[in-house]
Amino acid sequence: MASSSSSSSAAAPAPSGASQPDTGNGVAAAKAQKVTQAPWQVPVPTKPEPKLVDEFVTKVPGVVTWYNCGPTVYDASHMGHARNYMAQDIMRRILRDFFGYEVNFVMNITDVDDKIIMRARQSHLMKQYTAENAAPSSASKVIEDVSKAWTAYVNKYVARTPAEQADEGNFAAAEAAWQGVQGQAKDGKWLEAQKLADEKFSMHFGAVAAGYAALAPVRAKAASGQVGAEEVQSVIEANRDALGLWLDKQFGAGVTDPAVFRDLAAFWEDSFFNSMSALHIERPTTLTRVSEYIPEIVSFVEGIVARGYAYEGGGSVWFDTVKFEGAKGAADGDAEWQHTYAKLQPWSKGNRELLEDGEGSLTSTTGKRSSADFALWKSSKPGEPAWLSPWGPGRPGWHIECSVMASDVLGSGMDVHSGGIDLAFPHHDNEIAQSEAFHDCRQWVNYFLHTGHLHIEGLKMSKSLKNFITIDEALEKYSARQMRFAFLLQSWNARLDFKESVMQEVRSAESLLNNFFAAVKARSAEAKDLGSASDGRHHHEAAEKELLAKLQDAQYAFRAAMCDSFDTPAGLQILLDMVSAANVYLARGRKNVNVATLLAVSEWVTRMLRMLGLGEGPATDGQGEAYIGWGQAASSSADGSSFDRESVLMPYLRALSSFRDSVRQLAMSGASSADFLALSDRLRNEDLVDLGVALDDQEDGRAMIKLVAPEVLREARDAKAAAAAEKQARKAAVAAAAEAKRLERLEKGRVPPQELFRSNTAEYSAWDEQGIPTKDQAGEDLPKSRMKKLRKEWDIQQKLHAEFLKEQS
Amino acid sequence: MASSSSSSSAAAPAPSGASQPDTGNGVAAAKAQKVTQAPWQVPVPTKPEPKLVDEFVTKVPGVVTWYNCGPTVYDASHMGHARNYMAQDIMRRILRDFFGYEVNFVMNITDVDDKIIMRARQSHLMKQYTAENAAPSSASKVIEDVSKAWTAYVNKYVARTPAEQADEGNFAAAEAAWQGVQGQAKDGKWLEAQKLADEKFSMHFGAVAAGYAALAPVRAKAASGQVGAEEVQSVIEANRDALGLWLDKQFGAGVTDPAVFRDLAAFWEDSFFNSMSALHIERPTTLTRVSEYIPEIVSFVEGIVARGYAYEGGGSVWFDTVKFEGAKGAADGDAEWQHTYAKLQPWSKGNRELLEDGEGSLTSTTGKRSSADFALWKSSKPGEPAWLSPWGPGRPGWHIECSVMASDVLGSGMDVHSGGIDLAFPHHDNEIAQSEAFHDCRQWVNYFLHTGHLHIEGLKMSKSLKNFITIDEALEKYSARQMRFAFLLQSWNARLDFKESVMQEVRSAESLLNNFFAAVKARSAEAKDLGSASDGRHHHEAAEKELLAKLQDAQYAFRAAMCDSFDTPAGLQILLDMVSAANVYLARGRKNVNVATLLAVSEWVTRMLRMLGLGEGPATDGQGEAYIGWGQAASSSADGSSFDRESVLMPYLRALSSFRDSVRQLAMSGASSADFLALSDRLRNEDLVDLGVALDDQEDGRAMIKLVAPEVLREARDAKAAAAAEKQARKAAVAAAAEAKRLERLEKGRVPPQELFRSNTAEYSAWDEQGIPTKDQAGEDLPKSRMKKLRKEWDIQQKLHAEFLKEQS
Repeated sequence: MASSSSSSSAAAPAPSGASQPDTGNGVAAAKAQKVTQAPWQVPVPTKPEPKLVDEFVTKVPGVVTWYNCGPTVYDASHMGHARNYMAQDIMRRILRDFFGYEVNFVMNITDVDDKIIMRARQSHLMKQYTAENAAPSSASKVIEDVSKAWTAYVNKYVARTPAEQADEGNFAAAEAAWQGVQGQAKDGKWLEAQKLADEKFSMHFGAVAAGYAALAPVRAKAASGQVGAEEVQSVIEANRDALGLWLDKQFGAGVTDPAVFRDLAAFWEDSFFNSMSALHIERPTTLTRVSEYIPEIVSFVEGIVARGYAYEGGGSVWFDTVKFEGAKGAADGDAEWQHTYAKLQPWSKGNRELLEDGEGSLTSTTGKRSSADFALWKSSKPGEPAWLSPWGPGRPGWHIECSVMASDVLGSGMDVHSGGIDLAFPHHDNEIAQSEAFHDCRQWVNYFLHTGHLHIEGLKMSKSLKNFITIDEALEKYSARQMRFAFLLQSWNARLDFKESVMQEVRSAESLLNNFFAAVKARSAEAKDLGSASDGRHHHEAAEKELLAKLQDAQYAFRAAMCDSFDTPAGLQILLDMVSAANVYLARGRKNVNVATLLAVSEWVTRMLRMLGLGEGPATDGQGEAYIGWGQAASSSADGSSFDRESVLMPYLRALSSFRDSVRQLAMSGASSADFLALSDRLRNEDLVDLGVALDDQEDGRAMIKLVAPEVLREARDAKAAAAAEKQARKAAVAAAAEAKRLERLEKGRVPPQELFRSNTAEYSAWDEQGIPTKDQAGEDLPKSRMKKLRKEWDIQQKLHAEFLKEQS
Repeated sequence: MASSSSSSSAAAPAPSGASQPDTGNGVAAAKAQKVTQAPWQVPVPTKPEPKLVDEFVTKVPGVVTWYNCGPTVYDASHMGHARNYMAQDIMRRILRDFFGYEVNFVMNITDVDDKIIMRARQSHLMKQYTAENAAPSSASKVIEDVSKAWTAYVNKYVARTPAEQADEGNFAAAEAAWQGVQGQAKDGKWLEAQKLADEKFSMHFGAVAAGYAALAPVRAKAASGQVGAEEVQSVIEANRDALGLWLDKQFGAGVTDPAVFRDLAAFWEDSFFNSMSALHIERPTTLTRVSEYIPEIVSFVEGIVARGYAYEGGGSVWFDTVKFEGAKGAADGDAEWQHTYAKLQPWSKGNRELLEDGEGSLTSTTGKRSSADFALWKSSKPGEPAWLSPWGPGRPGWHIECSVMASDVLGSGMDVHSGGIDLAFPHHDNEIAQSEAFHDCRQWVNYFLHTGHLHIEGLKMSKSLKNFITIDEALEKYSARQMRFAFLLQSWNARLDFKESVMQEVRSAESLLNNFFAAVKARSAEAKDLGSASDGRHHHEAAEKELLAKLQDAQYAFRAAMCDSFDTPAGLQILLDMVSAANVYLARGRKNVNVATLLAVSEWVTRMLRMLGLGEGPATDGQGEAYIGWGQAASSSADGSSFDRESVLMPYLRALSSFRDSVRQLAMSGASSADFLALSDRLRNEDLVDLGVALDDQEDGRAMIKLVAPEVLREARDAKAAAAAEKQARKAAVAAAAEAKRLERLEKGRVPPQELFRSNTAEYSAWDEQGIPTKDQAGEDLPKSRMKKLRKEWDIQQKLHAEFLKEQS
């Protein structure tokens, strides 16, 4: 903010426009004497500036490049997603709307993944199976199939010893094994112990139990008599997991249509963004989908292979962690440095469970040299989506996608990379290794942000604990604002507990804020009615000074909290304390309250709440003046709108309706296609122009709609019409000229060729039978060349006359 | 943004939540081995950070304390006010909404001032005079009074020598003097010269001329006969300035009601804020009025007197510039320093015209020791508002108010003080001197911002040049947004030229932006309709990379411009260039455009435009999602409501447009009338029902439009369909019954009447030639009544048989 005024010395009161006066008497003389300003005292901060700038350094000042791990889209988004993406959204907003950075936020959609493959195949096969076995006649077949599927499921997930495993056809054996296990589980202790060891076990245990409960009675009934179609249907439903798995094992490899996988992913991607939007989480600046980046992924993997940090094996490509660890990196100035594997969680290296989870359930380990190595490219078996590659048909490993897409959009490095803490190892550590191998760089990501876990009432959220909540379910109970408030009340990088006591806290905070805003609005409205009427007091006494001093302290403290790793719990508390202080002031009563002071507090609190994404509805009125308060939650106004639907919509609906009226009338009177097209043009060129709606007809038949000021549209339309009229006029002129020429020819053709030269006795004295002259006036034979020329003229006239005769008839 | 996680060392990837894993097997063991993360590379900026933080240092980090000189309220706000307050508003918004400072913006209203006193007294006396002399009988008195007033005005403002001055009663002498002056002025040269020397002269010259033109003919007419009340009224009107002055001279001292002064100030203060609001200039955080700060001003003056830098003289208190200049200041650490007078414009010291102007027209110089000294407290004469003080009844000097009110609200110093460049000397220099004297401080204000002059089409704005424009007049011609845009196109501290060529530039920029936003909205809406459908391409190729790189460059350049003393002309150009680049990209057509990339550009441009105060209407939709574009100017929505045209209208317009698309397609494919009617029905029954629009087709072919909740419409539609189906079913049943009856008749008619009774030998034994029985089985003649009945039956059968035969053929 240095002054751009040329005469201002650096020491002068810096951005003053006063140093170069441009009017007034005597100034020129004073300047001639070189009178100069006294030295300016450079201000020194009296309190330390929060350490934002010292510690957070972006590659380009003021711009943050950020890659965030997006979702794998195969199911509904749940509270774990909410916790993660809400935290990113909050930090992104704080960086942009509080600290003033521009944030280039890139996120991927994982739409190629073992989980998606399994889910898509099973759901496809189940749909097929259900359709094929809908007839009551299939009842006994379905019961037998489900029994087999259930048996296989018990074998796979519940049986603890080979002795407990039954042949697929031996339902009775599986039933016995199951009852044994269940009996032991009855006191709950054994089950609890299993749960702690393996959360998934408990889920499968539940599925087996539910499946058995539905299957057993129907099976018994079927043995003795008829079973209804509905009963069969419910048996299928209760055994979905088991049946899907059983069908997939037999027929999964035959699912080859890529649309099966793509459609499932697209469906859940839309669902994900709908949930995000419901939570007011902003969309990324750039969205990347794995399925659209296969060629780039193949090249990237080739690059790592070329650097020697990856090898092919069994049709897959593996990252060579052994070779990478400690390898010498490229020159970085004078510094020597070595590559390091697992920078984020070196202590997790060799954690088998995490590693296997990272590789996916469909991935074979064929060709892998070290257990820590991981797949960059996976060979695809039948029934798995596949793309051609130098290593045969396959698909990308999980980790490689993020390295490739982040590099494609953001280049060879970035400021921030984020994701849930679950992803730190192996996903992010593998990403880092791959990328630093490919770019041969020392530090691919400067700041890694890992959002904390989510708990529900103190427990990990899981389907088996029956505390699994989807975002849509949560939104039925709480508003988006309440959920965000709850999340803001806990640190982004700590474990977040979503619990009723927090929601109580949220509700009371919400009501504190709503009451405050309502009171300020009321006082402000009263003051507006009074205009600038004065009671002679300035109303800026000790109470106002105290409140404004508190405001300034709060603003400083809030800034410090934001600088302290986005400490939103502290930030919210500062806002609430500020409101409480203002409420004390408000209690002084109507006559002793300075509305401007109240507005200063409410304006700041409003702005900070909105900055954190808690604002609802418009932030300003039509005149750009800030509203008081954070707006009404959308749910509280039935149609969410503050306008008069009637008066706003009617002009447009009238245009629509009358267009339709005309279409119907034309149709009933059997009008021509041209009439309909003219009607459509009139709608575009007249009616909608006056309404400020531009329709641009496109080649594909779907017009593009734009809202533009009517006068702009009218101008454009009239200019177009004028141009068209001019073109028309030019065309008409050309046509008129052609017509004139034609008439001239006709006039000329009136004379038959035989008569053409007859009357010209001044030049000729004899003619042949066709009327062509043979002798000149002197009776001399005409020369051959002359004769030839006359014959040509005669021929032309013959044509003209023929035209004339044709026209006459 | 240091990590708050306790286990994270400073060298670890800073704000990572990953360093303290909280789940997973084997972690405890790994932790026991003290595995640690590799050292983190501290990022180093690659480009210089703009020098905002280096050079602009606030007393409290993140908070700006700012005092701005507000208006003296005695007339309508004009373009000079707009230029000044708009510039402050823009800088305030940039500091807050771009750089993230909290701004405590204090502004005063000068409601005690010599100009206000004069204006209030005169307008009060004029009102009284007009009321008292409304009767036609007063005509000759009024003409005589106005003549005297006019004469006095000529004497005071136009006469150049005593010889040209006339006695008050000698209108003829004044008339002669005026005609002499006017004659000399005719060639314009003399007048031009006077204008340059004294702009006010020209104004008075105009007033004298206008007054004379109205007065002379009426005066002549009155000498010979009757003059109408209206004529007299217009003479008063044309001589307002002169008459007001004349009345004030005689009766001004008698105006003692404080309400006279207060009411005028209150009226123009409201008018000022209305104008500011119309220009979307935000209200100050704290507003202070001089009239409400008298006790504080008295104390402050006492404080200066106590320090020895002021003295009483003639009932006034004067600041002692001589004593102040060079006086030793209080200890400031080890440094010794001296007070300095006229720090801002030392070259203007002793400029008599500026000094006199600063003191005001009603201020006597009695008791003043040095010509450079200025009034802190003015003794009030009768007819001037007065408050009690240790120095007798008086009122504050002009400069003292700002020192007192700024100190009262902001303490003994501030970060920023602003005002128009005209105020630099003596107003701001006197403020500084008083305040540094009172607080005994070295630098009262750290940054003084002086906004530049305003010119209209290259000339200073003045009533005499007839280019004087009030804000309300300007707003009739231009929107608030256009005016702000024009101001932003020129530097805040340079001379601003408000001219048509700039407004042309504004209009073309506005249309560039509007077209861009409309196109992005259209593309975005199309993309939303498609959901996450993928064409298999990632649409982040060279063109997208290039555009996003341009965006990042623009963001950096924009930041640099804002840091360079709020260089808004450069900033706007960067935004417009960015839009032009995006338009080139847009021209690639629907299929080759990545909507997210376009949104990134439009979101940023939108945010920056709104940051500068150019946004209209709400910035987000109900869900907190940012709108595309800077909103519709309020003027274009007739009902002034704050809804978003876009989100409200689009669903309806899409229905309209797609109906029209279909009509055109049907027309082009030569469809039948039935197709068009089916299309119309579908619009009514499906699309519009979902939008809550009911179309009731009427007999005259014009449908009736109703807005109804969609669910109500759906219910009604389904009920109608059900009723229709039922009616249809009833009809069908009736028809079936009728048909059955018909078939029965036909069946019955199969037998010819002659055969009807023949076979019934059980009852009859003889028949006539028509086959009607004549005797019963016993051979007895049938009774006549019986015969008659049988004949009737025969007739019926004849009819039925005839029908049967007809059907058969």
